[in-house]
Amino acid sequence: MATIVLYSINRTAQTTVRQCLIPYSKGASRVDSHLSVFLKTSVRRLTSLPRVRWVPNATGVRRGAVLVAGAAATVVGFVASATHFQRAEMASVIPKTEEEDTEIAEKCKTFMSPPCTDVKVLQQKKEEMCTRMEMLIMETQAEFCRALEEVDGGKFKVDRWERKEGGGGISCVLQDGRVFEKAGVNVSVVFGNLTEEAAKQMRSRGKVLKGKDGKLPFCAMGVSSVIHPTNPHIPTVHFNYRYFEIEEGDGTKQWWFGGGTDLTPTYVNKEDGAHFHNSLKEACDKHHHQYYPDFKKWCDRYFYIPHRGETRGIGGIFFDDLDSPSQEEAFSFVKSCAHTVVPCYLPIVQKHLNDPFSPEEKDWQQVRRGRYVEFNLVYDRGVKFGLATPGSRIESILMSLPLTAKWEYMHEPPKGTLEADMLEVLQNPKEWV
Amino acid sequence: MATIVLYSINRTAQTTVRQCLIPYSKGASRVDSHLSVFLKTSVRRLTSLPRVRWVPNATGVRRGAVLVAGAAATVVGFVASATHFQRAEMASVIPKTEEEDTEIAEKCKTFMSPPCTDVKVLQQKKEEMCTRMEMLIMETQAEFCRALEEVDGGKFKVDRWERKEGGGGISCVLQDGRVFEKAGVNVSVVFGNLTEEAAKQMRSRGKVLKGKDGKLPFCAMGVSSVIHPTNPHIPTVHFNYRYFEIEEGDGTKQWWFGGGTDLTPTYVNKEDGAHFHNSLKEACDKHHHQYYPDFKKWCDRYFYIPHRGETRGIGGIFFDDLDSPSQEEAFSFVKSCAHTVVPCYLPIVQKHLNDPFSPEEKDWQQVRRGRYVEFNLVYDRGVKFGLATPGSRIESILMSLPLTAKWEYMHEPPKGTLEADMLEVLQNPKEWV
Repeated sequence: MATIVLYSINRTAQTTVRQCLIPYSKGASRVDSHLSVFLKTSVRRLTSLPRVRWVPNATGVRRGAVLVAGAAATVVGFVASATHFQRAEMASVIPKTEEEDTEIAEKCKTFMSPPCTDVKVLQQKKEEMCTRMEMLIMETQAEFCRALEEVDGGKFKVDRWERKEGGGGISCVLQDGRVFEKAGVNVSVVFGNLTEEAAKQMRSRGKVLKGKDGKLPFCAMGVSSVIHPTNPHIPTVHFNYRYFEIEEGDGTKQWWFGGGTDLTPTYVNKEDGAHFHNSLKEACDKHHHQYYPDFKKWCDRYFYIPHRGETRGIGGIFFDDLDSPSQEEAFSFVKSCAHTVVPCYLPIVQKHLNDPFSPEEKDWQQVRRGRYVEFNLVYDRGVKFGLATPGSRIESILMSLPLTAKWEYMHEPPKGTLEADMLEVLQNPKEWV
Repeated sequence: MATIVLYSINRTAQTTVRQCLIPYSKGASRVDSHLSVFLKTSVRRLTSLPRVRWVPNATGVRRGAVLVAGAAATVVGFVASATHFQRAEMASVIPKTEEEDTEIAEKCKTFMSPPCTDVKVLQQKKEEMCTRMEMLIMETQAEFCRALEEVDGGKFKVDRWERKEGGGGISCVLQDGRVFEKAGVNVSVVFGNLTEEAAKQMRSRGKVLKGKDGKLPFCAMGVSSVIHPTNPHIPTVHFNYRYFEIEEGDGTKQWWFGGGTDLTPTYVNKEDGAHFHNSLKEACDKHHHQYYPDFKKWCDRYFYIPHRGETRGIGGIFFDDLDSPSQEEAFSFVKSCAHTVVPCYLPIVQKHLNDPFSPEEKDWQQVRRGRYVEFNLVYDRGVKFGLATPGSRIESILMSLPLTAKWEYMHEPPKGTLEADMLEVLQNPKEWV
């Protein structure tokens, strides 16, 4: 029933994308040329992405669409495609659910801060996907922060910030808490214009993306979070859900979603792993039986540290460029994922809240955090893009780094230890459900 | 008197270099294609390098030569150039100094480990620059390690390792010492072949680089070190000296040197800064009065963290692509620099050996170490190249990372504090001599 179009790209497509990007960056504005740098970076890493070719009603369409968005920072880059455009035309405003009918202003009062967009604007445009997604990410931030505050006893510091070039964000950080060493939950809503020159590269069967007065308004938004607990028996969690939209001169909108949730424990705990993955699978299965297996694989491949030959953690789900089967269905899936964050993580936190731990266990956690830093600074596309983008808020991007980390020369856990068991799982990703 | 050719590249040159690199990488071997990836990375960052155009006997030659070599890891990448070739033809074997006459085998006994190259081979080829440079880097490693051991009381762990593709290295690490939290001194000697296809891109006024049987042997070597002391009043030091050589079919050799020494204190200490920079200036002045001012600027620009708007430390000297005025003079300059490492750093260590420090001062050191990690993982070309090169020894590359580091959200030292003074110097590099 549900139609999924996933990711398919081959060597030739990569070359084409690279060629396209050169003139794209030339004519782009400051921000846009950084988008292009980001794309070049991501194109280079495409081979490490899963090559999922979806075929429920196989039309043999070769996707040229590539969306790459950071896992830790909420940022988005894109190259449009044939099917992308067609699908966008199918996008429609579907009657809101009852939940969404709740007065926007009332809902906003429950958030960690007033939303990035003015409440009046949200109310005026309450049926638009940008509004609905902004409400979802604000809600997710509040839900998660409150759940963490409850278990920790501490309070999140809330920073509202603006982006000179358009948009802004809300960063919530809890540091040196009773349970959490560093917990960050960030929302950002960024908008601006792409030039037609830039958009020229996004052809689709001869179709040119046409702006109004040569400009193409775009909007990117998302919620992202990384939680580093003090106790080495409570795993680190990360999630990120995002939405991208670009508007043509005639009002046609291109859009897509991305996101994922993944777990990084210090020690293997089969029960925790099963609970975490099962929760995600349940959320996925409501929408398509292929979502979990495909997005689980994608996650293992994305959060991989090539120079260590290890994944960052035990994975979860990761997806990008999701623009089908319909905007409503895709949003509904993202909403299920976002609402699964608390139930898939908090029970694990509660369970290990009072686990005793030794200095050696804390030390191993610190070494693993060093690897976390390596992944985030060297490979994470969101972080790389964020650091290279003028005007981005560095503290919100690097919020994902742990409070402390360690690099011991030649740290090699002896065989048969729990530390070696963890490494073995990271070197050979396993099935948890 | 001495003739220096430094770094000059403009926008057009960058484009040319990029175009050249595409076919270059295609025909290259596995290792060589990674060299090419490294070059692409470095080309992108060229604008952040100083544009020193040297003109003592200005011929208006536009340098296309680009050598980029990692600061922390001993690795080398290159694109050859017009003048490069000409200068190489001028390279000659000059009578050895008395010091160099000392029997090779005897000298080797004083090293931390037998050298990478077999002693017999070194003896047979004792007049060649590759041998002389290998002896210098081994000597520098031993000199520095012994000086650190003396002050710390601990012993370096010595690891000898081989590189499957050719060559190997010696990593010396002292961890959790009395004075040094983590001290690494690494030597590597790497060799192999570049294909003619790869070399085809290195034209010089119509001249093609000709190999023997289509192959061009190359050799890259260097010594690099990062020392992170425990006491926040003892600064971190880094140095790296390296040599690259490529041989044409007719025996003509292209070669160049690179290197530098720089200091990263946690707190400003004018006296220390002056001593450090003066020592380097003295070493430079023996060779050319422009070396210190030019290489000091280059250092400030290289060790810059754009997303923080700060330099990594208070600098020192940094140079690359040094292939003039003669091979002998260039080597002599590098030797002076290498011999200055101990006298420019050890007196500072001795001076602060027993300085008391507070937990707050230790904390600030940890925050600064976080920035050190950011620079090394995000920007350092040597590290980036190393991580992307199959078969490279990760533990030797990441030896440069501190034992521990910290990322506090929104860490902003209040005005008027010593921490704020340090930031001010990092945001506005100053003159120390």
